[in-house]
Amino acid sequence: MHSLIKTLFVEKFNNPPLSKLTDSAVLKIDDRLLAFTTDTYVVKPLFFPGGDIGKLAVSGTVNDLSVMGAEPICISCGLVIEEGLDYRILERIIDSMERTAESAKVKVVTGDTKVVEKGKGDGLFINTSGIGIIRKSISMDDIKPGDKIIINGPVGEHGIAVLLARGELGLESEVKSDCAPLNGLISEVLKVTDNIKFMRDPTRGGLGTVLNEIVEGKGFGIMLEEDRIPLSNPVKGACELLGLDPLYIANEGKVVIVATPEDVQKILEVMRHHPLGKDAEIIGEIVSEPKGKVGMKTKSKGTRIVDMLVGEQLPRIC
Amino acid sequence: MHSLIKTLFVEKFNNPPLSKLTDSAVLKIDDRLLAFTTDTYVVKPLFFPGGDIGKLAVSGTVNDLSVMGAEPICISCGLVIEEGLDYRILERIIDSMERTAESAKVKVVTGDTKVVEKGKGDGLFINTSGIGIIRKSISMDDIKPGDKIIINGPVGEHGIAVLLARGELGLESEVKSDCAPLNGLISEVLKVTDNIKFMRDPTRGGLGTVLNEIVEGKGFGIMLEEDRIPLSNPVKGACELLGLDPLYIANEGKVVIVATPEDVQKILEVMRHHPLGKDAEIIGEIVSEPKGKVGMKTKSKGTRIVDMLVGEQLPRIC
Repeated sequence: MHSLIKTLFVEKFNNPPLSKLTDSAVLKIDDRLLAFTTDTYVVKPLFFPGGDIGKLAVSGTVNDLSVMGAEPICISCGLVIEEGLDYRILERIIDSMERTAESAKVKVVTGDTKVVEKGKGDGLFINTSGIGIIRKSISMDDIKPGDKIIINGPVGEHGIAVLLARGELGLESEVKSDCAPLNGLISEVLKVTDNIKFMRDPTRGGLGTVLNEIVEGKGFGIMLEEDRIPLSNPVKGACELLGLDPLYIANEGKVVIVATPEDVQKILEVMRHHPLGKDAEIIGEIVSEPKGKVGMKTKSKGTRIVDMLVGEQLPRIC
Repeated sequence: MHSLIKTLFVEKFNNPPLSKLTDSAVLKIDDRLLAFTTDTYVVKPLFFPGGDIGKLAVSGTVNDLSVMGAEPICISCGLVIEEGLDYRILERIIDSMERTAESAKVKVVTGDTKVVEKGKGDGLFINTSGIGIIRKSISMDDIKPGDKIIINGPVGEHGIAVLLARGELGLESEVKSDCAPLNGLISEVLKVTDNIKFMRDPTRGGLGTVLNEIVEGKGFGIMLEEDRIPLSNPVKGACELLGLDPLYIANEGKVVIVATPEDVQKILEVMRHHPLGKDAEIIGEIVSEPKGKVGMKTKSKGTRIVDMLVGEQLPRIC
């Protein structure tokens, strides 16, 4: 998929905002920098512990804007409805979108609905695109060894919650998706520091993929400390049973931050005072070796490489 | 569908830009007015005479911005790909999007791809959302009797081209979709007049639906002249054979304009000098009676009411 996006999108639609492949494109209109992003949600099932496709669609787009240092202003909503979808289901999902938008203080300002025949869709797909005003420009060009890596809480909850909600594995679990709009948390963080060098929400591909994207082709690497990475017991248990690595499982309410060591305690403090950041941790740092790689000091005092994920990630989780 | 959008979207996401139900939402950022729009394209088949889903997706979003008096700046592209879609088909469609975007001088700046299992999609769905800078605000509040109604060319071509391309009707025809980005034509028109009171692209529901939306609940009506409405012989023939009214057939390269009588000749002249407006015509005018209705002087010198369409429009044509 990554190669598909790179080849087709970047080569064909050759232009500077797109080729950066960040969460949002950055546009300059007059003297104002705007962030613009799009995501289509095809999650299956439509409802899962901790959320639903509507909450996910609003949160995901709000988060893609927020990690660019942007204040999300408005979003669009494009629905593809499979014929026969129960109107009450649609109503519940739109209600959920509305509640999530309200909690994130964004407005759904424009929409579109299309209906396809039974068997030509899968209940409901939702596209949300969003516009935000960039309040602080964040550039990963300044990342250097010694910078710290922070995450606002436990990893893997969204992917595991959705996977188990499909019921195909016959596993019972109390795992809930972490799906939530992070703009409130991020704006609190941006109030106390000007030294954030990178933010990203580790969705598809999880924490491991985002960290690899930070170091890919760079003159520095990352060293994680396994015992500092927040992980809930139910996610840990489910991953062990299913043979999955929680580092590659999708999150929908997490943000990875790279910041200067001087500001890390301030950031951590602000995060831990916010409901979506109470389990925030410093999980590692930028190191000069191994260059271009993500290493991890394991609980057993060894070191292993956390590679770019090869092959299929879990399908239809967002 | 109209009632679904009204009830669910407008009631739930209650906010001023959305409740206007125009083609794009209007946002004020600093002193700048921006237009923001979204559309998902589920047209079937993916390729049809005169275009394909990619050309359609770019044109449709460019047009939704343009009719708001906005200069389209950038668009997003969200793909839902059904597993098994031939990569060469995807490539042809992305190429077509790129060519259309280039011809319309807009950039595709952000994208997303999702893959769904075979039988859970239908080849390809494309969402395009777009941002434009509003150059001239157009308000239908000033519409009054005597204002003229202009269209830039023959109606019904897109809907008929797509319908026949499905091959289910066993009809051969030379009808080509009119699918095209109209921002060039519209910007030429806006150079010669400040007296445009309404613009809209008559897509789903066709010319008849757009005209009814203009007069709905208003203290004025519209009187059309049937013999002034541009209609090609192949569309006319297909409509007669299939029992369809071309006034309700979708267009994807047409714009309906309401303007003061003083400026109508200037507008017509500019349009007719543009390749997408050479068949432009004044098709009717705003009248004081019948209020809230669209009437039409027929070729046989009678008068009939062109009602709001009841029931299903052709499915999957955009």
